Amino acid sequence: MSTARPVIVVHGGCGDVPMEEEAPRQAACGHAADEGWAVLRRGGSAVEAVAEAVRVLEDEPILNAGTGSYLQADGVSRLDASFMAGDGRAGAVAQVAGLKNPIRLARYLLEQDAHVMLSGEGALRLGLHLGHAPAVVATPAKIDYWRDHLDEACRGLDYAKMAETWKSENVRLGTVGAVALDASGALAAATSTGGTGQCYPGRVGDSPIIGAGTYCTRAAAVSLTGVGERIMVLLSAKRLCDLVADGRSLDQAAQAVLKEVEDLRSAAGLIALGPDGRVAVVRNTRFMSWAERRD
Amino acid sequence: MSTARPVIVVHGGCGDVPMEEEAPRQAACGHAADEGWAVLRRGGSAVEAVAEAVRVLEDEPILNAGTGSYLQADGVSRLDASFMAGDGRAGAVAQVAGLKNPIRLARYLLEQDAHVMLSGEGALRLGLHLGHAPAVVATPAKIDYWRDHLDEACRGLDYAKMAETWKSENVRLGTVGAVALDASGALAAATSTGGTGQCYPGRVGDSPIIGAGTYCTRAAAVSLTGVGERIMVLLSAKRLCDLVADGRSLDQAAQAVLKEVEDLRSAAGLIALGPDGRVAVVRNTRFMSWAERRD
Repeated sequence: MSTARPVIVVHGGCGDVPMEEEAPRQAACGHAADEGWAVLRRGGSAVEAVAEAVRVLEDEPILNAGTGSYLQADGVSRLDASFMAGDGRAGAVAQVAGLKNPIRLARYLLEQDAHVMLSGEGALRLGLHLGHAPAVVATPAKIDYWRDHLDEACRGLDYAKMAETWKSENVRLGTVGAVALDASGALAAATSTGGTGQCYPGRVGDSPIIGAGTYCTRAAAVSLTGVGERIMVLLSAKRLCDLVADGRSLDQAAQAVLKEVEDLRSAAGLIALGPDGRVAVVRNTRFMSWAERRD
Repeated sequence: MSTARPVIVVHGGCGDVPMEEEAPRQAACGHAADEGWAVLRRGGSAVEAVAEAVRVLEDEPILNAGTGSYLQADGVSRLDASFMAGDGRAGAVAQVAGLKNPIRLARYLLEQDAHVMLSGEGALRLGLHLGHAPAVVATPAKIDYWRDHLDEACRGLDYAKMAETWKSENVRLGTVGAVALDASGALAAATSTGGTGQCYPGRVGDSPIIGAGTYCTRAAAVSLTGVGERIMVLLSAKRLCDLVADGRSLDQAAQAVLKEVEDLRSAAGLIALGPDGRVAVVRNTRFMSWAERRD
């Protein structure tokens, strides 16, 4: 077993946010990094540290994941999350409503190592079976946002019009994630999101897709944020790991992946971590909140 | 606009099937290939041809997609499908119950080019909005199979035990798919499945994941079948296209992707098609039904 100096990096999403939200988002990331770091310091695994950091990020109402998630066009928040360890185990949940920490379900699936991905009511049912408490994740701020954007198309679930609006507007995004390296040299990565506001009910983005929003090998751990519809076609997280496997540095791979996003005139940000403790943080948006802790 | 000699290839899934099912599965593939070929012959696009071929495969009760899908542990069939065109547009639906042709929804999302993926009740709602008729996809044979395998674990939704059973048993798989090249030189690929029998309610496999079960670029179109939990971590369809982009032949790329599956001691089969009309069909299972039509 190799030994390594532990590191944790977290992000709270990229994209244009109101100036006054920058500091509290940074503070939320700092708090999550502290909690994940505490796990690593007491000898916890990368999976444990990432799970704890993402749980804290999900519980921060200012970030779009868990509590504080956006509402879909029908007024329901449906959450996505994914989790992967460097040994290849993975777990993910898509479109689960009524639970506040989808990352716990993703971790359960990773550790159980049977099914990789669970969606909708089935994911809720598993959560309740495991003793996760039913929860309301809508906050007054996100309910106000939904009400303010409830146009004719959303009211009537006019799918064609909703698609036009979604394509033409600068939609509010947001995702949280974490990557960690533990003392044994193991890596883990996870991502969680409340998706985008006013989207089709049931819309799945990149965050619960292993290879899109999250990927992890023994050589790299990565979590992305940005326009899900582009990241899920580029499979950016897997791509970054493939480039590292082909001999690129973590930073070169991160820049190459961001360039693929830019070639589609889209937006993304990412955090990546290698087994040597090296970190890459890149974005093509004005702002991305993130934090890092190491000795 | 380049011109090409149209080709269509379809598959009806890989895996051990009873000997007496081999001929009818081959016949079903032949029928679907004929229908897709008819679209290409009258000048239709690759997307149109693939949509028609997969619709026919979904309607074949002997194949595990659309009508004739397996039932999950709770006695409900939930369907997955994905669709991609060589120009990068993609659409997918996961875990939709109550509709017989999920491929139609995947194609709608591809052509609308707004959201890439829709799941569960939200996907059903879109289908009904578009005028797709509510449908029962359970056949007597698949209901019998479900009843015969309804053990204690499934009855009580004992998740831990269900996972053990699922990992230890040779689960029944099955997926359908098609790839096509049209006269303009455009490629398209699509995949559809009823998943695996007796799985967790809401379990999502590789088939609706763009990059896992389906991927398409201007240089290759691919559809996979096999153990979803492995394919969705390998992102095999995207991987094949990346290898082709890096200069490998279609056949070399197909073999490399199959080797990655074998390295995980897992099972898969795939069909792939290039813009020059070259086809690769590989599998590491005893049987895979498939058919090809060209001039």
